[in-house]
Amino acid sequence: MMLRSVHLSLGFGVSPLLRCLPRFSGLASCSWSGISASPEGLPLGVPCSRQHGVFRAFRMSSGGPGTSPDVDAALGSAVALPAIQMPKICFCHSCGNPTKQVIPDGDKNMRQICVVCGKIHYQNPKMVVGCLVEHNDKVLLCKRKIEPSCGLWTLPAGFLEIGESAAEGAARETLEEACAEVEVLSPFAQLDIPRIGQSYIIFRARLKTPHFSPGPESLECALFALDDIPFDSLAFSSIIVTLKMYIEDTKSGNLKFHYCTINKRPGASPSDPRGFDVDQRLHS
Amino acid sequence: MMLRSVHLSLGFGVSPLLRCLPRFSGLASCSWSGISASPEGLPLGVPCSRQHGVFRAFRMSSGGPGTSPDVDAALGSAVALPAIQMPKICFCHSCGNPTKQVIPDGDKNMRQICVVCGKIHYQNPKMVVGCLVEHNDKVLLCKRKIEPSCGLWTLPAGFLEIGESAAEGAARETLEEACAEVEVLSPFAQLDIPRIGQSYIIFRARLKTPHFSPGPESLECALFALDDIPFDSLAFSSIIVTLKMYIEDTKSGNLKFHYCTINKRPGASPSDPRGFDVDQRLHS
Repeated sequence: MMLRSVHLSLGFGVSPLLRCLPRFSGLASCSWSGISASPEGLPLGVPCSRQHGVFRAFRMSSGGPGTSPDVDAALGSAVALPAIQMPKICFCHSCGNPTKQVIPDGDKNMRQICVVCGKIHYQNPKMVVGCLVEHNDKVLLCKRKIEPSCGLWTLPAGFLEIGESAAEGAARETLEEACAEVEVLSPFAQLDIPRIGQSYIIFRARLKTPHFSPGPESLECALFALDDIPFDSLAFSSIIVTLKMYIEDTKSGNLKFHYCTINKRPGASPSDPRGFDVDQRLHS
Repeated sequence: MMLRSVHLSLGFGVSPLLRCLPRFSGLASCSWSGISASPEGLPLGVPCSRQHGVFRAFRMSSGGPGTSPDVDAALGSAVALPAIQMPKICFCHSCGNPTKQVIPDGDKNMRQICVVCGKIHYQNPKMVVGCLVEHNDKVLLCKRKIEPSCGLWTLPAGFLEIGESAAEGAARETLEEACAEVEVLSPFAQLDIPRIGQSYIIFRARLKTPHFSPGPESLECALFALDDIPFDSLAFSSIIVTLKMYIEDTKSGNLKFHYCTINKRPGASPSDPRGFDVDQRLHS
């Protein structure tokens, strides 16, 4: 079922000025105004002790746990980020020679191509997978022990690995971050963040046993009643939007699968509730 | 809603031996038996004239249009493929020096790490996005002009690019492959193929105008009534499964969002209807 030009009724006092802006032809479009600095960069793996400042901008992680922080010292909170953030491929994977930027025959986009062997190095968005774990009308959140958004609450989630399915990856991340064994119940949401080349895939899940505890990347794990979710201390825009959609569905008694895009405002911090627009909102 | 241990009732005569095998703890599991050789490798960009043989195995594409075929001559139809197929990262993107395989501190997986600068090179699954275009109770299919599966029918789909959302990418691929402008209506399915590091995201869509024609990668485009879909001439397992789920939903009058995994059998061709198992089947 399609939603056309509807206001995004995520009533959590984000902005007094909700507005609808058609952005993508043929898709529902909702946004709200906001300000501020830095992209959603989930598992960068920087312990709190190495924190460089909450509003410092990060280059996109390469997509795995233990990734070095890759902080771009040239980017500060007041500097607008480039439209799309990707690590530069300067040398060929296969032969180690330099690459150059070329639009290959039959392509429309600039690619990094090896000047010696001609290999084309494509860069594609990465999937972040996570669980919305339900237990006795509460949901499981983890307080992050690592940057970005150290000290803020999130759903257990992380980059999908080669060789696993999204559901397996979401369960693995929940085990790693909350030491919780879960049964994945249903797909709940896909939230694309084009600016940073990430797509969040969130599943509903339930605890197999009522046990959880913080893993190495979490300071604390806790169950929150829906009315008690700390919306002013959530780590990422994707988590804010997911939890608001979940609360709406739960209160209406109609759980759906949701699709939307999150357009980060240049310079916004990952957790800034006014630092993004929600767009292209669809559901099953 | 979760489905537990149900038979996958895709009644299209794929195999006489449907069987249920629990594979992923806590998830519904369905499979059927099959035989054969090579992974689903969507937009490899090899024209028919360069075809090396339908059952030859391909290394995974790097994820973009115009990708060179990257045929592994050492792999034939009779040779079992390695468990997961990814291009090897032999040299560092950043400095061009060799990499070595190491499990980084705090990680559990082997990664390619630069021996000089220490950069970790993660490899993550890629998203393939496409549209199931509905028009007058028919669906739009494209006959492929490129390998793999040249000459077979598919939904318009291709690798998601950096900077676009999945819905935008699905509409772009439909424009490129079928010269059709579409309005994306709703998310329909996610089909993960862990063995080859791909995740298909399929949207329902409608034609904005009743015009379509083959793009450079298509030999032909046509609308098919659901009873006339050429299941014996479909290009990929993901397309077979998507269309069967769509027919089931349409006939029951209950369109849902579907999630499943496709486990390619080692050595199976992309289009072999007996060359894969469907597993972890969930829906919204």
